[in-house]
Amino acid sequence: MRFSKYLIPTLREDPAEAEIVSHRLMLRAGMIRRTAAGIYSYLPLGLRALRKVEGIIRAEMDRAGALEVFLPVLSPAELWRETGRWDVYGKELMRLRDRHDREFCLGPTHEEVITDLVRRDVRSWRQLPLNLYQIQTKFRDEIRPRFGLMRGREFGMKDAYSFDRNEAGAEESYRGMFAAYTRIFERCGLRFKAVEADSGQIGGSFSHEFMVLADTGEDAVVSCTACGYAANLEKAQVAFPVAAETATETQPPARVATPKMRTVEQVTAFLGVGADRLVKTLLFDAGGEIVAVLVRGDHQVNETKLKNHLGGREVVPATAEQVVKATGAPLGFAGPVGLAGIPVHADRHVEVLTNFVVGANEADTHLVDVCHGRDFAVTAWADLKSAEPGDPCAKCGEPLAIVRGIEVGHVFKLGEKYTRAMKATYLDEAGQDQVAVMGCYGIGTGRTVAAAIEQNHDADGIVWPLPLAPFPVHLVTLSETDAAVRAEAERFIAELAERGIEVLWDDREERPGVKFKDADLLGMPLRVVLGGKSLVRGVGELRVRRSGEKSEAPLALLAETAAALIGKLC
Amino acid sequence: MRFSKYLIPTLREDPAEAEIVSHRLMLRAGMIRRTAAGIYSYLPLGLRALRKVEGIIRAEMDRAGALEVFLPVLSPAELWRETGRWDVYGKELMRLRDRHDREFCLGPTHEEVITDLVRRDVRSWRQLPLNLYQIQTKFRDEIRPRFGLMRGREFGMKDAYSFDRNEAGAEESYRGMFAAYTRIFERCGLRFKAVEADSGQIGGSFSHEFMVLADTGEDAVVSCTACGYAANLEKAQVAFPVAAETATETQPPARVATPKMRTVEQVTAFLGVGADRLVKTLLFDAGGEIVAVLVRGDHQVNETKLKNHLGGREVVPATAEQVVKATGAPLGFAGPVGLAGIPVHADRHVEVLTNFVVGANEADTHLVDVCHGRDFAVTAWADLKSAEPGDPCAKCGEPLAIVRGIEVGHVFKLGEKYTRAMKATYLDEAGQDQVAVMGCYGIGTGRTVAAAIEQNHDADGIVWPLPLAPFPVHLVTLSETDAAVRAEAERFIAELAERGIEVLWDDREERPGVKFKDADLLGMPLRVVLGGKSLVRGVGELRVRRSGEKSEAPLALLAETAAALIGKLC
Repeated sequence: MRFSKYLIPTLREDPAEAEIVSHRLMLRAGMIRRTAAGIYSYLPLGLRALRKVEGIIRAEMDRAGALEVFLPVLSPAELWRETGRWDVYGKELMRLRDRHDREFCLGPTHEEVITDLVRRDVRSWRQLPLNLYQIQTKFRDEIRPRFGLMRGREFGMKDAYSFDRNEAGAEESYRGMFAAYTRIFERCGLRFKAVEADSGQIGGSFSHEFMVLADTGEDAVVSCTACGYAANLEKAQVAFPVAAETATETQPPARVATPKMRTVEQVTAFLGVGADRLVKTLLFDAGGEIVAVLVRGDHQVNETKLKNHLGGREVVPATAEQVVKATGAPLGFAGPVGLAGIPVHADRHVEVLTNFVVGANEADTHLVDVCHGRDFAVTAWADLKSAEPGDPCAKCGEPLAIVRGIEVGHVFKLGEKYTRAMKATYLDEAGQDQVAVMGCYGIGTGRTVAAAIEQNHDADGIVWPLPLAPFPVHLVTLSETDAAVRAEAERFIAELAERGIEVLWDDREERPGVKFKDADLLGMPLRVVLGGKSLVRGVGELRVRRSGEKSEAPLALLAETAAALIGKLC
Repeated sequence: MRFSKYLIPTLREDPAEAEIVSHRLMLRAGMIRRTAAGIYSYLPLGLRALRKVEGIIRAEMDRAGALEVFLPVLSPAELWRETGRWDVYGKELMRLRDRHDREFCLGPTHEEVITDLVRRDVRSWRQLPLNLYQIQTKFRDEIRPRFGLMRGREFGMKDAYSFDRNEAGAEESYRGMFAAYTRIFERCGLRFKAVEADSGQIGGSFSHEFMVLADTGEDAVVSCTACGYAANLEKAQVAFPVAAETATETQPPARVATPKMRTVEQVTAFLGVGADRLVKTLLFDAGGEIVAVLVRGDHQVNETKLKNHLGGREVVPATAEQVVKATGAPLGFAGPVGLAGIPVHADRHVEVLTNFVVGANEADTHLVDVCHGRDFAVTAWADLKSAEPGDPCAKCGEPLAIVRGIEVGHVFKLGEKYTRAMKATYLDEAGQDQVAVMGCYGIGTGRTVAAAIEQNHDADGIVWPLPLAPFPVHLVTLSETDAAVRAEAERFIAELAERGIEVLWDDREERPGVKFKDADLLGMPLRVVLGGKSLVRGVGELRVRRSGEKSEAPLALLAETAAALIGKLC
């Protein structure tokens, strides 16, 4: 492909709209353009990268026995009402009415539509298991779309839905998809981690996220290098302390004046104790009920763990008003002693503590030498703290690490949630109606392209992993008007075409500096230069984008050398 | 692909919802399913046919130098307001508001979005010509969606937009796309005709439709076998009569009582004259003005021609109320004589008539021996009649034929309509701002699949043209439990796979009759049967779906024979 006939509107300057590196580089490299907030058009180069991701996904989904379908963007409200999601989905669901005033949404996901299909056309156990997938545009009206393709309102996804005869079958389908996802991201040439993810309160269900690792990732991935355990921050468990403290419970609690000291830092500094000797009391509104949550002063409450602990109720921090009303004290002085009528949920790290510091539910006052059980009752103990680097792994006790990642895939065992609500049943071998068991599996296609760039770039631009590169080779010719140069370029391209290697040829009449800068920005794995002094010497120059490694090859061997270098990058 | 692992829910009965053959067969063959009115889901087999069409389109668009992009479904209202289309598009445009109350539509076409892209990133004459295309889902809220994929509300399209420096360039782009479309439909294996189409009133613009020929087609295609002229009915010109009549204008008009005779048939039978001696007077509301239109009694008014003749004003037949008010007579007795203040537009076939019959603008009365010029004035003469079979061709005078077709593609020279409204300019070689000249080019992808079936089917089912067949070969094995049969089947499939030929293998434990019926219904070009008595004789049976031609081949040569037969179908 000749650059002069292509549309690659590169930008010299960083676009003001871009906050993260993949967004900035995709705009600068002329891969995408913003059409509206959170809504992007793919230019040819961006579409090429997207198609590479889609091609790898399609090959592996087919290999795993999934069947490709194509479901509509417009999803009728009736189906969403059957599962109750029409009412609970909220403002992220883009809704519209047609000319006959019938309601539709723009599908953010397709559980309802696929379950409707399956209940109509799958009737026998012989037709199961069945795994249907599509690559389709999805819609989510993000309140604050940002980061380019990373959090858009209209975005590409591969979504798959498996239907099985029973739980065991569903688990096998799940494992098959887990394996396919692993192959997909391996084949994309990305460093990634499959991590345990929160799957809410659906009984017997489980879920993994596939995270592309990148320092700029917005998600925290907790992992143990010793045993391989990995989970996202919402889900990550930590080992509980087991040794009971040796301190005795002889001291009765005492009131201490702590004027205007509202933070853990202020109180522990004043009292001369560590933050691990103070127990924070945080109030939450859990589906309308005020609850108190206790964690150590140096720990953070994990709201997802709390939500699951409370049976899936939505939890939000109590408002200042609610806190004042519940404790009878200003903000910053809440404590568990004398909190009448409010359930107290405490993290397991508090269970081993005695003689600790808490708020006194009274302005400018804390209590010291407090003990649970003796001075207040705990409603329930649970794992409620967020994992932190160095916390002991729940599986093996070794210290956990936290790295950054970008969620690009998600596999989820759904159970019977949709099939039961929509009556997607089949006849088993005994002729009995049975509810199919479902799984769903998503990959963000555009998001994967963006994540690849977050992981693979340097100060000069993109550094494509070979499998996702729009073109493996970027040919720069110097002195465009020189017929000999053009003839060499055409021969080189033809020889690589025979090997199935596509070349982007920068044939523009631009200064070499401009061309080299654009080559670095676009980031194709191998740059080849023809022209100038080296051509006089009868050689072409090759440079590997990632390593910067340079070499030369005689013109007769240039294509062969390039192909060999590309082969090594695989 | 094994049938037992695939999702092909064939139906024995004709589905009630289907009105036309392609819709019926696509449902029966398990290719598509209705998700809502005019909104379909593609099952695996239907998607395969769609992908074949898309693949051919993509290859030919790329070959023609067009660049693939991917534009969003959501189109911001601001862009549509710039061209004025937000307000004129009407109820077919599906509109919605996002959570911030900003207006969007679901793109039925992308002139605005692509012109916005081009005006931002194309600045120099060096970047032109540029032709950008996409294959994307489109939306049109049809008041009465029907015919399955033929007239849906959500449908697949390839749309392309060319940008040129001037009219000459735009015409070259147009010719390039015309040639590409011709290759595309040839490669699809379809019988088609490119016909001149109405392009409205845009100066200097022209347009062709690509029609797949099928007796069941909803469009009429007018064509001349002598000179090759072809046009759709809206546009088709006919030769005007040149010889003036010999009858003299001596007779003055006379009033004749024609009680309750409102139709051409009634009046001409009563008067004992041919319908070609009566001139019908039809009243239209042309953008608020009432106009009279005269055509011969045996001719029909072509409203598109009338609209264009009247400068593009919308024309609709006058209401009964308007007719009564304008003529002072009940319906059925309108005539041009004494029609005060109403412009009279007459078809050229009336120009050569003298002493004809017209309505008298009076109940139960007609006038005979009327002559234009003498008895009433004609405001303008024009080509206003619809072409009919046998009409002389406007190019060569030979008789025209009318065949039925289905519009699957449309090429259109747009001119500067969008680029001027949206200020899509570029700097020419002299550094002057110039407005780019545009063309647009569409192909309905799902519609092409449906049209292929309309053209290629018989009483038993689909008869796929090879290039669009989901699988070229349909293998039926008898006695599934026989290991020898399965081994032969697997060898046959492997040997064809080496030749790049895909096989759908019906490995279901079903009676042979069921399998044969499904094979005919699904319509793959070549059916191969393994098993039964022929296998005992060491042969397999082959049958060409279209011709019904049967043959046998020894097992060792079966794949080779099948490949040769497939080769002959290309």
